[in-house]
This record gives sequence, C-alpha cells and structure tokens, in this order.
Amino acid sequence: MHRYRSHTCAALRKSDVGATVRLSGWVHRVRDHGGVLFIDLRDHYGITQVVADPDSPAFKLAETVRGEWVIRIDGVVKARADETVNKAMQTGEIELYAQEIEVLAVAKELPLPVFGEPEYPEDVRLKYRFIDLRRETLHKNIVKRTQIISSMRNGMAELGFAEYTTPILTASSPEGARDFLVPSRIHEGQFFALPQAPQQYKQLLMVAGFDRYFQIAPCFRDEDPRADRLPGEFYQLDVEMSFVTQEDVWTTMEPMMTKVFEQFAEGKPVTKQWPRIPYDEAIRKYGSDKPDLRNPIVMQAVTEHFRGSGFKIFASMIESNPKVEVWAIPVKHTEATGPIGRAVCDRMNAWAQSTGQPGLGYIFWKEEDGKVGGSGPLAKNIGEERTAAVAAQLGLEAGDACFFVAGDPAKFYKFAGEARTRAGEELNLIDRDRFEMCWIVDFPFYEWSEEEKKIDFAHNPFSMPQGGEAAFDTQDPLTLKAYQYDAVCNGFEIASGSIRNQSPELMVKAFEKVGLSQSDVEERFGGLYRAFQYGAPPHGGCAFGIDRVVMLLVGAKNLREISLFPMNQQAQDLLMNAPAPATPTQLRELALRVVPTPKKD
Amino acid sequence: MHRYRSHTCAALRKSDVGATVRLSGWVHRVRDHGGVLFIDLRDHYGITQVVADPDSPAFKLAETVRGEWVIRIDGVVKARADETVNKAMQTGEIELYAQEIEVLAVAKELPLPVFGEPEYPEDVRLKYRFIDLRRETLHKNIVKRTQIISSMRNGMAELGFAEYTTPILTASSPEGARDFLVPSRIHEGQFFALPQAPQQYKQLLMVAGFDRYFQIAPCFRDEDPRADRLPGEFYQLDVEMSFVTQEDVWTTMEPMMTKVFEQFAEGKPVTKQWPRIPYDEAIRKYGSDKPDLRNPIVMQAVTEHFRGSGFKIFASMIESNPKVEVWAIPVKHTEATGPIGRAVCDRMNAWAQSTGQPGLGYIFWKEEDGKVGGSGPLAKNIGEERTAAVAAQLGLEAGDACFFVAGDPAKFYKFAGEARTRAGEELNLIDRDRFEMCWIVDFPFYEWSEEEKKIDFAHNPFSMPQGGEAAFDTQDPLTLKAYQYDAVCNGFEIASGSIRNQSPELMVKAFEKVGLSQSDVEERFGGLYRAFQYGAPPHGGCAFGIDRVVMLLVGAKNLREISLFPMNQQAQDLLMNAPAPATPTQLRELALRVVPTPKKD
Repeated sequence: MHRYRSHTCAALRKSDVGATVRLSGWVHRVRDHGGVLFIDLRDHYGITQVVADPDSPAFKLAETVRGEWVIRIDGVVKARADETVNKAMQTGEIELYAQEIEVLAVAKELPLPVFGEPEYPEDVRLKYRFIDLRRETLHKNIVKRTQIISSMRNGMAELGFAEYTTPILTASSPEGARDFLVPSRIHEGQFFALPQAPQQYKQLLMVAGFDRYFQIAPCFRDEDPRADRLPGEFYQLDVEMSFVTQEDVWTTMEPMMTKVFEQFAEGKPVTKQWPRIPYDEAIRKYGSDKPDLRNPIVMQAVTEHFRGSGFKIFASMIESNPKVEVWAIPVKHTEATGPIGRAVCDRMNAWAQSTGQPGLGYIFWKEEDGKVGGSGPLAKNIGEERTAAVAAQLGLEAGDACFFVAGDPAKFYKFAGEARTRAGEELNLIDRDRFEMCWIVDFPFYEWSEEEKKIDFAHNPFSMPQGGEAAFDTQDPLTLKAYQYDAVCNGFEIASGSIRNQSPELMVKAFEKVGLSQSDVEERFGGLYRAFQYGAPPHGGCAFGIDRVVMLLVGAKNLREISLFPMNQQAQDLLMNAPAPATPTQLRELALRVVPTPKKD
Repeated sequence: MHRYRSHTCAALRKSDVGATVRLSGWVHRVRDHGGVLFIDLRDHYGITQVVADPDSPAFKLAETVRGEWVIRIDGVVKARADETVNKAMQTGEIELYAQEIEVLAVAKELPLPVFGEPEYPEDVRLKYRFIDLRRETLHKNIVKRTQIISSMRNGMAELGFAEYTTPILTASSPEGARDFLVPSRIHEGQFFALPQAPQQYKQLLMVAGFDRYFQIAPCFRDEDPRADRLPGEFYQLDVEMSFVTQEDVWTTMEPMMTKVFEQFAEGKPVTKQWPRIPYDEAIRKYGSDKPDLRNPIVMQAVTEHFRGSGFKIFASMIESNPKVEVWAIPVKHTEATGPIGRAVCDRMNAWAQSTGQPGLGYIFWKEEDGKVGGSGPLAKNIGEERTAAVAAQLGLEAGDACFFVAGDPAKFYKFAGEARTRAGEELNLIDRDRFEMCWIVDFPFYEWSEEEKKIDFAHNPFSMPQGGEAAFDTQDPLTLKAYQYDAVCNGFEIASGSIRNQSPELMVKAFEKVGLSQSDVEERFGGLYRAFQYGAPPHGGCAFGIDRVVMLLVGAKNLREISLFPMNQQAQDLLMNAPAPATPTQLRELALRVVPTPKKD
C-alpha cells in the first residue's frame, strides 16, 4: 500500500464497503459521541468521516489528536446506517473504521479556526494565510480561480492563439500609473521597471510577425491602496491580433468569454450576443460607460417638455444655456414592486440630498376615478398636459414613477447614472442571478483636462483614432472617436481594448494635440515608435481583468477572497514579512542610500 | 470580404485555384524575372508566391514595394506549372495573380535583413528584435517554445495538477543567489524582492491543503552574466505534491516529460524509463552528477591492479594515502572508430596537459601474431599479467583503449568526467540524435565548504534528510543523504527536486549543523517555519528548467535563440532602453538617493 494513502478523502463510496484503505489528511473536527470518536478527515478533495470506538487498536491515539493535525489512518470502509447517510457529502454513504493511526504532523494552538469559518480579523488571516486557505470558502474560490484561468487558456488555444511571456524586468513607462522600480546592480543609478501591462511588448510582437498573442500576464502598479484593487500585482488575460478590425476582436473574444462564464455561472444565464453600445449612447441611457444592464431603467432626454414650463428652475436653466438638458429616469412598476408612490420618491429625494444634490425632482402616476394622472410638486408645476406628454414619451402608466435631473449632461451624467442605479436597488429591480454583458464602443479619443486646462488622451494613447488623418485636420479634437472599446459585465468593466494606431505619422499627430512633440514620442515610446518605422501590420486587442472576472463568478466582494497570498491594504505581505529593510551590503551593491523624507509638523 | 485577408499566407492549395482571395503580410522578397514581378508574401503562418505581370492593374504599385513593407493583395489563385511546383512550401502548388495591392505600412531601410538570415551583430539584433524575430529560425523557435510550454501545461492538467500563481513582489531570501530588490514607496527604506523561485510559496500551498500545484513560474536572480544563463528572469515548470514519496514525484513527472520530449523530438528516440542513478554511482561511473548517457563510456575503479605495481607513480600514491584510487576510462572501439591506437591516446594525453594535468596514462590493446596485448608505457610498467587483468575486468579487447586517473576521487572525479566526455567526443561515440534521460538520486545533504572551513548545505536546505532524526544523532553529517534528486538529459540538468523537510524540529537540527540557530531559522524563513508548526503534510516536488528543455528540443546553443526579448550580456534591454536613470520625482517618492561607488584607481 502507498506510504500515505490509497484514496483521497473524497473518493470512498458505497462500492468500497469492506475494503481496507489508507487515508491521509487534516483533522477537520473531532467529536466524542458517548465514548465513540468521530474524526472528520479533510484533504484538498473532500472529507471522510472516521470512526474509532474503544475496541479499535487506534482508539488510544485517536483520543489525543487535535484539530489541524495531519494524520494517516488505515481502516475498513463501512456503510453508514440509512439514518446517518449524509447526501451533502461526496463520501456521505460510508465511514472509515480506524484500525491504525499515524501522526504525520501536529499543530500548535490555532491562531484562527478552520472549521466553521467564523469571521476573523484580516491581519491574522493574512499572517496565517496557510491556515486561512484551508477554510472551505476560500479554498474553493482559489480552486475555482485556477479553473477559470485554465478555461481561458484552453479557450484561447482553441482559437489559435499562442501564449507568449513578455519581460517582467523592463523599462519605466511614462504614461499611466506609477511604476515599481528595480535598481540595476550592474548599471549603477539605473533602474528597471515592472510592467504596468505588456502593452508595448504585445504590439512589438505583432510588428515581429506573430499573429495571435495571448498571455495570462502579471501587471504591476504602485498605486495607493484602493478598495477595488490589491496593492502590487494583478493579472490580466492580455490579447493581441494582427490584420484585424475591432469587429474581429469582438467576435473572437465574445463567444470564448461567454463560454467561460457559462462554465462557471452555475446555471445563471449569460448574455450570448453582447450588445455593442456606443459610448455616447451609454452615457445618455445609463449615465455610465459601465452600465449594469440587469437594471431595466433606461434614461431619456425630456428637455422639450420642460422648456418654458411652469417648473421655473428647469425652464430658466434651459433658457440660459443651450447645453442644458433634462434627463428622465423612468421607473416602471412590476408585480413585485407594486405601484410606486410618494414614499419611494421621497426616499430617492432624500438619498439625492445625502449625496450633496439639492434634491431629485419626480412625478409618479396613479389612476384615480378611472383617470391616470401625475402626482408630486413637479407635475403640479408643469401641468397636466406636459405631464401626460412626458408619460407618453417614456411609456409610463399608473403605478410608474420618473425622476428628473437637469443641467449640462457632461456635469450631471454621473449623478444621473447613480440615481438610475439607486432606483433599481431601491425597488429591487436588478436580477442578481444573471450575467449581463455588453461592449461599450466608440470611446472619445481625447478629453478635456480641467486640471491642466488642455486636451489629454481619454484612454489609450496608442489607440487608432477614427477617421484617419483627415479627421485630425478637420474635426474638433474633442469630438474625435477612437477604435477603443470596453467589455462590461453587471456594471463592472471586465475588459478594455482598441485597434492600435500603427502609423508613425498619425502617432506623432495624435501626441501633438496633447502638447507632445515627435522627439517626446521618440524618447518616451522609443521601442514602439521605432518599430512602427519598419513595417507594422494593422493590429488590435484587449485585456480582460482576471481578478474582476473571478470575483463576479465566485460572487466575492473582496479581492482577498479570490487571491492566494494578497498583501494587506497597507501594501504589506504579513506572511512573508515584506517589504523589509535591505542589508547594508545590498544597498551598497545597488549604490543606493535611503534618505528618509523629512516629517511634516 | 474581410478588410485584410480571406486566407493566411500558408492556406492556399491547389483546390483553391480560380478563387479570388485576399492576403496580407510582409514582403519577404521581390524578384523581377524578365519584367514579371514575383513577391513572396509572408505572414506568421507561411509564405505565398504572388505574381504581377505588366497586364495586372497592380503591377505599377508592385514595382514600388520593398522588403518588409506590409501589403494587402487581392488576386486570383493560379496553379503553378509542374516544373515550378515547390514541394518544400505548403503553398508550393499555387501562386496568387495580383489584381490589387494596398500598402498597409512601409519600412525604412532595414538595419538587419530578414530574408536569408545572414549572421548579424547581436546588439543590432537585440535593438531591432522586432525585425530579428521575423527571421525564420528564431520565429520557429519561439513558436515551438510556446507549444512546448502549452504541452507541459496540458500534461500537468491531465495529471490533476492546477496552476497557482504565486506573488512576484515578495520577501528577500537570504539563501541562494542575489535578489532583485524593489523599493517600497509606502514603506520608506523597505524593499520587496523578486522571487528566485516560488520555493517557499509552493511549500506554503501544501501546508494550506492544496494537493497538486504547478506553475510556469517566472524566477529572478541578479547574477553576474554567464554564458548559460540570461541576466534577469527565467522560467521553470514548478511542481509540488502532498502526501508523496520521491517515487511518486518520479513516476508522475517522468511519463509526462517523456511525452513532451517525444512530441517535439521530431522522431529522435527519448528514454522511456529513466534510470535512477545514485549520486555516488554517477560520480564513479561518469565523473559527473549530470552524465551524458549518450556517451557509452562507463568508468570503473581498478586500484588493486596498480597496488604494488611497476607503475611507481600510481603505486606510491596508493601506498601513501588510503583515499587514493585509480579510475579507468575504458573506450571500446566500434566499426566507425576502427581500432583505437596510439594517435588517439596521444591526443587525449595532450588534451589533458592542456587542461593543466601532468598527463593522462593509457593502455591500448592490439592483436599481434594471434595474441592480444596492451601497448603504451603504462602497460610496459605494470607488465603483461596486470595489463591482461585490467582488460578482463573492463571487458576490453583488441582495438580498445583505456585511460587512467589516480588520486583522491573527491579531487579528480571532475577531471575524470571531462576525460570521459572528451574521449566520447574525440571518437564520435555520442549519438546526437537521441534524448537520454536519467534521475540522479540520493544527493548528499551536506558538503564540506573548503572556503568557509565548515559544513554547508549541498543543495536545498529545505530537503528531507534520509534516516530522520536518528541519522543526525549518529551519522557523520558528510555521509548523510537527502531525498533530493535531479533529472538529467544529454548531460544537462533539466530538473531538480526533493522531498521537503516538513518537521520544524528536524529543520532546526539541520540548520544547527551549518551553524545556524533556531532564531536564525525563524528570522530567515519565518513564513515557512511558522507554517510547519500548524500541521504540515509530507510533501515534495521539483522544478524543470524551461529554457534548458526548449534549448535541447530546438537544438539551440544560445539562450537568445529561444527567448523573445532577452537582455544582452551586460544585462541591458537594448530594445526598450532599460535600465535607465529614474526621475528625481521617482527617487524622492522612494526616499532613495543614488550614491555612486568611488572609482578604484
């Protein structure tokens, strides 16, 4: 028999009854039922119930074992009595009658329990991550994470993509977030940087004539800790293709990712045909470029109904500024919500005030004496006819309500989107048991930087602007669109991508508009810019955020619930004790001295 | 039709003749045959020959295109005349008659040519790696590399292993090579380190209850450049298993890796049952723990034949020191070598002298007058009888030869191994068209450090010593063996591994022998040592060097021939211009100052 086990702790079935077997694992729980000991023995695969009664030669040792000890047990498989069969366990039809126990490793008193997974302070969980990871939920999440990534890899391979690993010690990138630097020992005073993403390398691969690249790529950003991003490193499914249009990227990735989601969605429906929503439309309909399409609310502009109306606040805003619009956030009632009345509207209004807004105008419709009419102060102000026109435009009926925001859409669209989300949540309109995907397309190429009072790249400076050189010469830059797109699931951005600008001339033109010269481009993006001089194919791609996809699929709210050895929010690895001071030798070899920042009083 | 292509440049066949198709790719070569232009159009997949004659509407533009321009061509597939069919090309039965050409990107004058792959200085190749990578050999090597790694991944998945990614920003490890450090911005004066290998993390994973781990793992060592190691990063197939003996590791990995080798060996035979050779035996038989088993020479000790013999040098060495042995390097002649005579022996002797040895004693046997006898000075000195006894022990006959080294084997075994290799090469005894694998097992746990005049770990300090605690208490530490093994292919170490010491008490005992206390262990390996207190399962694993495996399989001699974006030997990335000075802001944020090392005069 094998030194440690003939079966895993998930393997034994009724058909094994009578067999002499050997198991090894952790003592999950010990119970003493009237002098008979029950040990739940756990390994990676599952749990088997072990029984030792005083007649067993293993009984004496069994009495001494404690939680999380590692033991080997030899014994005979017995069928459980019908009333003790546990259908929830894979091995629930049998138990192992222990004949011999060997202690393979003992455990000191546990700093956090495994069994039952009670809540525990995060610093203890991270310091003793090797125990935390034994807990069922986290263990399952991590296993599922490996399966999701493996499924992505297989999906990409089926599509004819090959996985290329790109350098991790590379050059600092002047755009984007802050780099982690790595001092060079051989070249004093010089530094490598860890890649924020393999963006330049994957484009260089296309220029080098490779056609379909992907990589489960580690990425590094030295950002201040944020709730939705772990400090340090994260992974993306990085993709690039040559000789493609953006349609090719979408039609390639969409079925693959749909399949991955379906595989792990546990029966929840997944969008098969992802709608392609232009950025401008997404903003107007959902107030966000990351719309949660599970929320049925779709906004519309209803400006004309308020122009010159008795609701003076809106009417005078419309009068004074041609940019001003009034957006409606229409909420249809359902069987579950029942008619939406003043109480809900008042709660929404109070919420809006709590976010710093002066309030949230609303109308709700009800039927009285066989006649449908709008209620609320706003309806009174604009009168019956206009109220009816609003209802007609939005298709609202008795029991429905609508909220209104007015102003320059560029300034209020975010709040409108939040109000849409809030209304959906308030009325429980969001079906949580589905995955609603879409592509947001036609992102603006530039945006106005209020801070720097100049135009800046809205997203990726390497994206191809729509309309080619002609557009640059004739169009207001702020109206330029890019072949730039995001994939969104349930209100979260899960991917971003673009067709790249592979023309060196157009690249220079694009950077000129944000105030950078050709020599700036050469200096900052030398590798890529130089490569584009020597026959660069049209190419494009995208990158899916793996952590986000896994979080959605396992239903985790916290990145630490899907990460193996995460840092804490202070960017420290409590398990390995990193970061830590360097030795004088290390610093000398790197020609560095630590110069503490003077403390501010 | 698709914007860029209906087919790849490797797709068209005779069955496509008559079809109107669209290709895109790079201009590999343009030839003008009497006014008719032939363009070899190349993409990732292959090459298609395009023809444009003066009747073609594409002819005028075709005349202007140059090497490595990226173009799109629409045309009609035509069958080649029988005499121009090229069987070596996938598309060799057809050609494309060009009707329309679009230039997608031009190329400046090339800093190095793609077509024909003439030799070129390495710094140009690395700076313009995106062009270098278009060259057929390198392109194929890189593609094969991705396929080999993908095959390993699939093989591991079939064996029930899951791929877990471990942190890249981690703690500095005090053992082993030099770490790359990463300054922490948030914790001034503190540093992360890039992992030299995920050794501690994979062991922590086992303690955390995961069972079968693998990872295509990036590893980082800040070593001075060496011919057989690229500066910076490299990849290993990292493996760890719980509840296993070393036999389990071997029987798991051996068939998987054999299959990977067979898949890419292009018909060359691969060892199916890898011999398991104890370290001591490997040293005695091959003079190396990385024996090339394609070399048929197997050494033996022949000390007794020289004790008290007329060959005074050896005889007096044997007399004066009980450690002294005489090793024979017997070389059997083959049909190909013919009888091995004095000329070969003299060349071997000259080679030995060129390496700083006083010479290399030899005997060669020939048949004269129906009688087999040994020739050479050494044979004369020891006489006919002893010469015959040597031949009998080694099974040597007329036409064979033998070389002899004497002394303390610990000091000469390396030279003996080199002489064995040299003799094999000199006589061309090594069958280059096969992959000969073996496991070297039972490595010593400790070794004597002549430099520090103390015992030190021979290999991995985390390995399990054989014999348990008892062996520590009773045995000479230098005779202790470890459950530590290497895999070797054709004379190269391709993997290393061990069963780990998971007992905290035994770990402390093991470190005590090299002069480290329990508190040293706690301080240096805190994460792992702490973990072992809380129920650590027996576990072990190994790591295969991916670069080495790929080099063997593609037959490359230089790591740069199988690496995508390697640094040069001065640890610089010439393509991305790294390392480079940091900005003052970056240094200030990291609280670091560069302090140049004073120049030595």
